[in-house]
Order: sequence, then C-alpha cells, then structure tokens
Amino acid sequence: MQTIVVALGGNAILARGEKGTFGEQLRNVRRTATQIARLIKEGNRVVITHGNGPQVGNILIQNELGSAMVPPMPMDVCGAESQGLIGYMIQSQLRNALHENGLHIPVCTVVTQTLVDKSDPAFKNPTKPVGPFKDRRHAEARQREFGENWIEDSGRGWRRVVPSPDPKGIVESASIKALVDAGHVVISVGGGGIPVIEDSGMLRGVEAVIDKDLGADCLAAAVGADSLVILTDVNGAALYYGTPQERWLGEVSLNELKRYEREGHFGKGSMGPKVKAVIRFIERGGKSAIISALDRVLEAVRGETGTRVFAS
Amino acid sequence: MQTIVVALGGNAILARGEKGTFGEQLRNVRRTATQIARLIKEGNRVVITHGNGPQVGNILIQNELGSAMVPPMPMDVCGAESQGLIGYMIQSQLRNALHENGLHIPVCTVVTQTLVDKSDPAFKNPTKPVGPFKDRRHAEARQREFGENWIEDSGRGWRRVVPSPDPKGIVESASIKALVDAGHVVISVGGGGIPVIEDSGMLRGVEAVIDKDLGADCLAAAVGADSLVILTDVNGAALYYGTPQERWLGEVSLNELKRYEREGHFGKGSMGPKVKAVIRFIERGGKSAIISALDRVLEAVRGETGTRVFAS
Repeated sequence: MQTIVVALGGNAILARGEKGTFGEQLRNVRRTATQIARLIKEGNRVVITHGNGPQVGNILIQNELGSAMVPPMPMDVCGAESQGLIGYMIQSQLRNALHENGLHIPVCTVVTQTLVDKSDPAFKNPTKPVGPFKDRRHAEARQREFGENWIEDSGRGWRRVVPSPDPKGIVESASIKALVDAGHVVISVGGGGIPVIEDSGMLRGVEAVIDKDLGADCLAAAVGADSLVILTDVNGAALYYGTPQERWLGEVSLNELKRYEREGHFGKGSMGPKVKAVIRFIERGGKSAIISALDRVLEAVRGETGTRVFAS
Repeated sequence: MQTIVVALGGNAILARGEKGTFGEQLRNVRRTATQIARLIKEGNRVVITHGNGPQVGNILIQNELGSAMVPPMPMDVCGAESQGLIGYMIQSQLRNALHENGLHIPVCTVVTQTLVDKSDPAFKNPTKPVGPFKDRRHAEARQREFGENWIEDSGRGWRRVVPSPDPKGIVESASIKALVDAGHVVISVGGGGIPVIEDSGMLRGVEAVIDKDLGADCLAAAVGADSLVILTDVNGAALYYGTPQERWLGEVSLNELKRYEREGHFGKGSMGPKVKAVIRFIERGGKSAIISALDRVLEAVRGETGTRVFAS
C-alpha cells in the first residue's frame, strides 16, 4: 500500500467565479471527497492538504469590516481559522463519501504550524498579495499605522503583500505521522500551514503565507510519502502554455522537468510552485510525483493522465 | 500514569471584561499553558478541551458585519473556525511551555464533530443564546427571513437562541484516542464539538451549541480517561452559592452531589452542566472528577483543593 500526499488546489473547494457561499463550497468539497474516496477505495493510503487563499481572504475581509465591534486577529490566527473551516468541510464530506463506499476509515483534521526560517530573505521582500483591493488612501494609512506593505496592482487598486518564506518543517509532524501510520486519513498543513519562526527555542506565529504546494512537499517528507499528487484545474504542466505551440507534459524525467523549469515554462504564481514541489519531492527520495486535474486523480495515479515524474 | 481530560472554561482564554484582542487572548492562553505544563510535568497524560462562546460570538458578528462582501457561514462552520483559532493558540503556547520545561511532547489540535440525536427534544426548544444583542426589528427580520429563533432578554434587547442538544459521541474519537495512546497531548472537542446529526448513515452539521462540559465528558469516555477535571474561575461547586450560608464543596460522594443537584444548588448555565458532567463521568466508570480553579489545577489533582468526586 503506497502513501500518497494529495494537495488540493483552490478549485477543490471554490470554483472560479463563485462567491464562496457555504452551499457552493459544500458542493465542491463533496465532489472532491468523491474523487479522494475513489483513490482510497483503490487501496491507497491518502494524506490531504489544501490551499486556503479565498477562505483566508474572506476571513481577513470579515475581520476588517467587523473591526468596529470585534478586535481583528492577525494573519496567523486567520489562517488557523481557515484550517478549521476547510478541514471540517473536507473531513465531514470525506467521511460520508467513504461511508457510502462501505469504508469506515477515520478521517480528521490536524491544525498545523509550519516552521520557517526567521532569516528567510522573503521577510525582507514581501511579494504575496492577500485580502481585498483597496484605494491608495487606505493602503497608505495601513502602511503608516500598522507597518503593513501594500503595492499597486496595475489598474486594479492597492493590495497588501506579505512574505512567502520557504517551509522548513511541520511542527505537528509526529502527530500527523502517528495517525497516518495507524491508517487514518489526515487533513493537515492547510494553506501551507500557519507560518511560525523559532526564537530562542520558542515558536511564534508570523504574518506570512506559505505556498501550499511547497507545504505539501514538506508534509510528504514528514510522513515519508511514496507519492506527491498535486491537483488543480488543468491536466498537468505544459510547455509554451497558452501559445499555439502549447504542449502538455505526460511522463517526464526529473532532468527534463528541471530543464523546462530553468527555461521559464511555468508561471510564477501558478504552475511554478507545483513544479518546484515535484522536483524537491523526487530529489529528496520520493518515488513519484504527479500534477493532474482533480476530477481525474485516480486515472493520474494509475499512470493514464497528468504530468508524471518518477525517481530514476 | 493517569489520563486526565481537562476542560478549560472561558476564563482560560478570555477574562471577564476583556475585549478579546489577540494580545489579551494570547496572554491568558500562555498562563493557561503554564498550568497545564505543570500537570504534564507531574507525570499526567493530559487531553484538553475548551469552551468557545466569546470567540464564536465574535466570528458570528464578523460574519454579519462582513455580509455585504462575504457570504456568511452557518454556525457549524463558525464553530469549526473557532476550533482552529483557539486550538492554534493553545497548541502553540503549550508546546512552548513544555519546551521551557524540557518536555518535548507532541501537541496538536484535532477538529472535532460531536454526534447529537436528531430527535433530541432540544431541537424543538432552542434555549442557548448566541451572538450579539439586537433590537426587535432585527430579530423579527431574521425570524421571518431565515427561520431563526430570537428571544427578548429582559431589558438588554433581543438575542438569537439555538438548540443545545445532548452529545452522544465524538466522531473523531478513534483519531483522538490513537494520539492520546501514543502519548501526544490532544486539543479537541472545542466548544463541545461541531454538532452533527446522522441521517441515513450520512453526517450533517446543524446550527446548535453543545455544552462544553458535557462534550468533555463525552471526550473522556472516548479516550477512556481516568479523571475529568473541569476548570473555571471559582474553586469548585458551592451550596447556597452567593448567600450568607454559602459552603464550598471539597471531597464529596457521588450520592451527596446528586442530592445537591436535585435540590437545585447549581446554576443552570454555569455550575449545573459542570456538576452534570461530573456525575455522568463517575456513573459511567470514571475514577475521579474535579471542579477547580484553573490556577490551582495541580493542587486540585493532588487532592488539596477543588470539588472532588471519587468512584466508590
């Protein structure tokens, strides 16, 4: 039985263009749970992680709009809230989907902190946009009063940016691994995990965002996964994406993929981190890594679709 | 080594009169973590649960005030968010407090659903107030549009009430028990757990609130705890509370406590559920149950203070 870390993209929970009502999210998560249940039924041991961009964005907006009555929470706490929100939705729907398949496997969510290096260069160069677009006046006031970093996004207004440091380890890895080894399905490292730094042996949350695919690679290392499967809304990585020469990658060697990455084929905020996570996972000793569409995950794991890299 | 389920009261996270800033909550949780660390250092295996009233109340307000921009989430989802929020604060501070004591024991939060009976009479008689006070107009609009139940609270305005059904079991009990048996410190069943009902084998969240002390008893049953320790801001249960004849209870037999309960000594919304949880725990085979002040938890477990009941 192989252990697979499955990284769910944003579309697993909220589709493009949706507002994010509970009904929408529940419907999407239910569909996602059906896919994961297929994977488990096939005999795979599955560990789940997920993005949290739209959800933590919404929680940040709620914090801002409610601030006259409720003290707003910092980003690390909002991230923890989003792990509870998304984790609950996935664990309840997956439990039901497994139940429908006659599989009575325990499912749970572990709230997760991810260790980052306090001297990570990202802290000097915040680049990850979070929360809603605002006008210059709002941006400047926040910069002045709270020391936040805001940048202008061409035409669309101003947006807060936070650092996106590299994940170094999962604080709750022992608990996650104990559950995985016991055969439970664990949802963890949501949104890349709550970023924490170590200061004289003490851990402390920071206002930052960890890339969820790199977090998934960290999780895969923590549980000793055989395979890392990154799910999204396209069927893998492509060369010359969006041009007439576009070519989708199927099975590809690590060296080829690294060359394509160097050549700049993969978008910085989208396919880039996925490919980076795949490369890291295989280089560290993982057996196989896949980038695939969520609704074809079982076919991808069977080797029928998606971009697939194997250890040589 | 005995296994103790510790139920943290509201004061463990937010003191009376505080606004609920992150700084306040962090300071309180740090103090709480120090107390729990003493208990663990003494050689006890600890499982933690906690209330979430003020936090979920704040999330509900944020949902309402943010509703023009962000679709509000139902109560079960808000409860899940509060589990993430509070769980993160406790797990990070407790990890640090243990570390300071040279104890490198894994700590984590498991997002938890609690099963309730869909035919529980509480669903026909919602009594638990949640969220902020509002005027009659707001209350009537919500009743009309969303079918919510609102009641007038003498002089203070209108407030939404939800059912408070009896907890029947912890959905994630197998995962929690696996972690506890492996020696990890688990935070779970926050706010009594997210209430779910079973319908043709499928679980579904409901808008309700489970009493956190009765949830703690359920958790204690799930992990096979030796002891249930309910912490609050007073030093135990009292007879004739708040009168000149007031008498604090120290060690007391189960039968005595049951008699005092029948005589109506314990307030419905405060000490009542704690005493009820203690009685249930001992009647189901627990060895000892304690109601004590948070800052004297170690002394209470040693038998020096608090209201203590032992199996005969």
